Amino acid sequence: MTAAQTTTLGPESDLPAVFELAQQLRVDSVRASTAVGSGHPTSSLSAADLMAVLMTRHLHYDWTAPDNPAGDHLVFSKGHASPLLYAMFKAAGAVTDDELMTTYRRFGHRLQGHPTPVLPWVDLATGSLGQGIAYGVGIALAGRDLEKEPYRVWVLCGDSEMAEGSVWEALDKAGQHRLANFTVLVDVNRLGQSGPTELEWDTAAYARRVEAFGCRALVIDGHDVAAIDQALTTAADGLAPTVIVARTVKGRGVAEVADKEGWHGKALPADLAERAVAELGGIRHLRVRGPRPPDAAPAPASPAEPVELPRFDVGDAVATRVAFGRALAAVGARPNVVALDAEVGNSTHAEDFAKAHPERYFQTYIAEQQMIADAVGMAVRGYRPYATTFAAFLTRAHDFIRMAAVSQVTMALCGTHCGVEIGADGPSQMGLEDLAMMRAVHGSTVLYPSDATSAAALTATMADLDGISYLRTTRGAYPVLYGGDETFPVGGSKTLRHGGQDRVTLIGAGVTLHACLAAAERLADDGVEARVIDLYSVKPVDADALARAARETGALVVVEDHHPEGGIGEAVLSSLAATGDRPAFAHLAVTVLPGSGTTDELLDAAGLSADHVARAARALLRP
Amino acid sequence: MTAAQTTTLGPESDLPAVFELAQQLRVDSVRASTAVGSGHPTSSLSAADLMAVLMTRHLHYDWTAPDNPAGDHLVFSKGHASPLLYAMFKAAGAVTDDELMTTYRRFGHRLQGHPTPVLPWVDLATGSLGQGIAYGVGIALAGRDLEKEPYRVWVLCGDSEMAEGSVWEALDKAGQHRLANFTVLVDVNRLGQSGPTELEWDTAAYARRVEAFGCRALVIDGHDVAAIDQALTTAADGLAPTVIVARTVKGRGVAEVADKEGWHGKALPADLAERAVAELGGIRHLRVRGPRPPDAAPAPASPAEPVELPRFDVGDAVATRVAFGRALAAVGARPNVVALDAEVGNSTHAEDFAKAHPERYFQTYIAEQQMIADAVGMAVRGYRPYATTFAAFLTRAHDFIRMAAVSQVTMALCGTHCGVEIGADGPSQMGLEDLAMMRAVHGSTVLYPSDATSAAALTATMADLDGISYLRTTRGAYPVLYGGDETFPVGGSKTLRHGGQDRVTLIGAGVTLHACLAAAERLADDGVEARVIDLYSVKPVDADALARAARETGALVVVEDHHPEGGIGEAVLSSLAATGDRPAFAHLAVTVLPGSGTTDELLDAAGLSADHVARAARALLRP
Repeated sequence: MTAAQTTTLGPESDLPAVFELAQQLRVDSVRASTAVGSGHPTSSLSAADLMAVLMTRHLHYDWTAPDNPAGDHLVFSKGHASPLLYAMFKAAGAVTDDELMTTYRRFGHRLQGHPTPVLPWVDLATGSLGQGIAYGVGIALAGRDLEKEPYRVWVLCGDSEMAEGSVWEALDKAGQHRLANFTVLVDVNRLGQSGPTELEWDTAAYARRVEAFGCRALVIDGHDVAAIDQALTTAADGLAPTVIVARTVKGRGVAEVADKEGWHGKALPADLAERAVAELGGIRHLRVRGPRPPDAAPAPASPAEPVELPRFDVGDAVATRVAFGRALAAVGARPNVVALDAEVGNSTHAEDFAKAHPERYFQTYIAEQQMIADAVGMAVRGYRPYATTFAAFLTRAHDFIRMAAVSQVTMALCGTHCGVEIGADGPSQMGLEDLAMMRAVHGSTVLYPSDATSAAALTATMADLDGISYLRTTRGAYPVLYGGDETFPVGGSKTLRHGGQDRVTLIGAGVTLHACLAAAERLADDGVEARVIDLYSVKPVDADALARAARETGALVVVEDHHPEGGIGEAVLSSLAATGDRPAFAHLAVTVLPGSGTTDELLDAAGLSADHVARAARALLRP
Repeated sequence: MTAAQTTTLGPESDLPAVFELAQQLRVDSVRASTAVGSGHPTSSLSAADLMAVLMTRHLHYDWTAPDNPAGDHLVFSKGHASPLLYAMFKAAGAVTDDELMTTYRRFGHRLQGHPTPVLPWVDLATGSLGQGIAYGVGIALAGRDLEKEPYRVWVLCGDSEMAEGSVWEALDKAGQHRLANFTVLVDVNRLGQSGPTELEWDTAAYARRVEAFGCRALVIDGHDVAAIDQALTTAADGLAPTVIVARTVKGRGVAEVADKEGWHGKALPADLAERAVAELGGIRHLRVRGPRPPDAAPAPASPAEPVELPRFDVGDAVATRVAFGRALAAVGARPNVVALDAEVGNSTHAEDFAKAHPERYFQTYIAEQQMIADAVGMAVRGYRPYATTFAAFLTRAHDFIRMAAVSQVTMALCGTHCGVEIGADGPSQMGLEDLAMMRAVHGSTVLYPSDATSAAALTATMADLDGISYLRTTRGAYPVLYGGDETFPVGGSKTLRHGGQDRVTLIGAGVTLHACLAAAERLADDGVEARVIDLYSVKPVDADALARAARETGALVVVEDHHPEGGIGEAVLSSLAATGDRPAFAHLAVTVLPGSGTTDELLDAAGLSADHVARAARALLRP
């Protein structure tokens, strides 16, 4: 292709030229998906006009400098329309036609079936529908309230995904915060995966909902480039968060598939693709140089201020959630740390951060999915989020956490009120599945301190970990075990009691470590020496200490305030399997359905009290 | 207490008398929580007038016959207001004053901190906020569309929980289905756990949202018993799903705490409680006999029609998701089986059921939380729901699944498109955490068939299991392994290859079983005999077969298309730990972050191909 063949479009290009770009995006969407034999061309065709106008005239973005902090953000919530996104990349000169045609959806290449941040122009992974708007809110909040950058956030989403509650959690927050730097384009193409959507083309219904949630709604014909241009101009007027409800046709521009059922997620067969390209006016190689953001260098790294962690006196009774709150406030000395709450900050003690650093504290109310989405959005902008709620209620955001791992985001989560230990509130409030959930997150770190000193230290450590880290804390107050100078490396453990005559090892974390210590006393009274290990690092686990304990004592008892599956017991077994150690083994975990009661009653009923631990240890020793 | 002291209220009682009942509910809420020293009295006081009017004049319910299928349903979404609910039970004569005062929130008793179905008047557990409306929609759907019973569903919810997206998923469905038998009472008391709610007393904003989602909104003063009575009358007019937005005062009736921050979730100290009871007019013992539902016996059990499962020819390539769909349609011969879809029925093959039994098929669109809530609501009414989506997207409903286990509900879930096996769509669509999630659910059964015959058989088996069962299915087509007469008991396994010279056992399920079979062939070519086990029952697992394999072959290789944590490998290790067997062990699972590619490329990159299995087996055998 010679320079003469390439026309470059920009903000000053007329709308007929922009329509030509839209046709090019359609053609390339068809070509790329047909070339590989899978993908979502029809879902791409419906939004091509929206994206052509956006990238030519409104998206302030330098494709050669995606890290420019002043650049706009585009989130493809309808990630399955990746052919359209990648066709935009081609039009921007970011990828070649060859890369698009030969690598899309292929192994080892970056143009995956759904966009992920392996691409420099993609902030975060999408493909689980109903998440993009939520992430966009987080990025927009960071831009306006933390970075004070001029960028706008644009989110393209489908109409099917508007059925997800997470969309309304997000729009509620966009409205509440009056995020005038935030615009959603809803591609109302009427057809979902398996048939018509619930609201089909009832754009007025979408608009009523959007406005009821505090955002501005603009209803347009999503194929009228002038109307699109006008709506995008209005959206950028700085007055309100805006949702453009665009009536579109799925498969627009290709008569054989337009507005027809049965074409979701299907590449066009080669012959149909050929006719489609012809109908769309053939292959083009238009280039786009849209509006540029102001030149801005990334903000210089703020000086690392010293973090003065709280100190606790050994023997004092302090809840790990209390230590977490105080440590979190201290970690706030690092200016990139932000904290997010789901209206339980007085229980989780995250409110300590709010008092110390109110400008970096975000109250999401009881909306855990949005809390995680805000965290992800802020992490995309380089912040270090700590998001906290009850461990039980983090399950509400499981899919967001899963996707954050695909996005390879770094964030810290804290779940409080774990286990039956919480007492009278009963099982709805007890986190009994959180270790299984968080261990199975790709690349996660899982920490579970037993005392205030380690809780504070690990809270600080999380600010230096990559990926998703999780801290599990306990409601009640238990004795401080460690002096303030003790260190708690990730992947480590603490052996609190040991000797040359150890015949069994008791392994706990959180409240169960205290049961293990008490059980060891009782066993000692009977002349049985027990080693006790504080397994504060659940993932990665201290394989060396476990292997040593297995070899030296021959018998392990693991005690956890969690269901038996996926927690500490299985982490220990996996570690021992890997090192080839085969000790006698007992596993105490919560197998009953708990009710209300005192902490001691519930721990005993679940078989986790010191008595049970001692009994399990004795049973292992029996010849 | 003598008969003379007891006044019984009913539908004909005047409103001043009903107000006396409201005061009694307040007094008892204060007394019960102060007696135990915990609980949520102020959140109970705000809703006392609403509940007094409801139970006296509108709730058609026979407290002595909670199983009457014509009786109304009351869901306390704000489950923390359990003192109010239990005070209602006392007023109804269902529990005694003594039980309320001496057992609330105490160990081994049924009046737990948050209500659960251990109480005969409670349908399902609440306490994770934002769920009650969703469950109510499911019950209302069952009543109107399945049972054709005249009951109404009433849901009391708090204002804080209106920030949960799940609330709007639910109201969207109430509106879509025009559920005129469904009424929500929102107790807008302005104060959440840690401060004012996002919308405080902006009842107009709530009303706009409710109406935008297709429900009727009635805004009232929630302490005006006449207004409440009028609104509840209107709600029952059979015209529309209705949300009563009631402006209330938290702590209403007790001046020292009314509308004051800092009193959420706190029992009143004894002296304050004494003053509160006096201010509220002292202790009363009013009884309520509200409107009765028509006498109706539970519907006779429908005759068990024979289920004719599809049959497959050994060797044919059939996807387990295809077999699931066909079997589900067949299981529909049982008239209490219902199926729920989240707009992916053409991928999961749940749509086969829609074609066979359209009247028992519910399309929830892309709203997985509501799909599970519908299932729970229908299960409460005695139906056997099968809810299906991609395994990855079941994580969206994790908190609902968790709570369903607390409710001890019976339902079947199916997650399709598990693992990297799905290919080009990439990681957002891959279920890689679902086994960990589902194994950790209390009382769950987890099944993972490798071929069409077992998939069909297990689909049918789920209709007879108690609790929450989960079937994991695979996207691609693999050879049928079993003839149609083979049986697949829960907790069993199939040994597909074995002999007296087995030196290693290869354990797989789903796609990895086929890799194990291929690896065994390669090993045999090298003179190494391998046993191969199809571990279709992941929870419970076949401990005997595993122990036997460990003893007889001495070496186990577990291969799973799932993250290493919480899945099949750890299930096997837990089983072996319990039986005391200690074979050499290798675990192949997905530790990489996958991208797009073909199935074979992705399985190989994740280390799950036959080559990797054979290599791992050889490594175990090395001296």
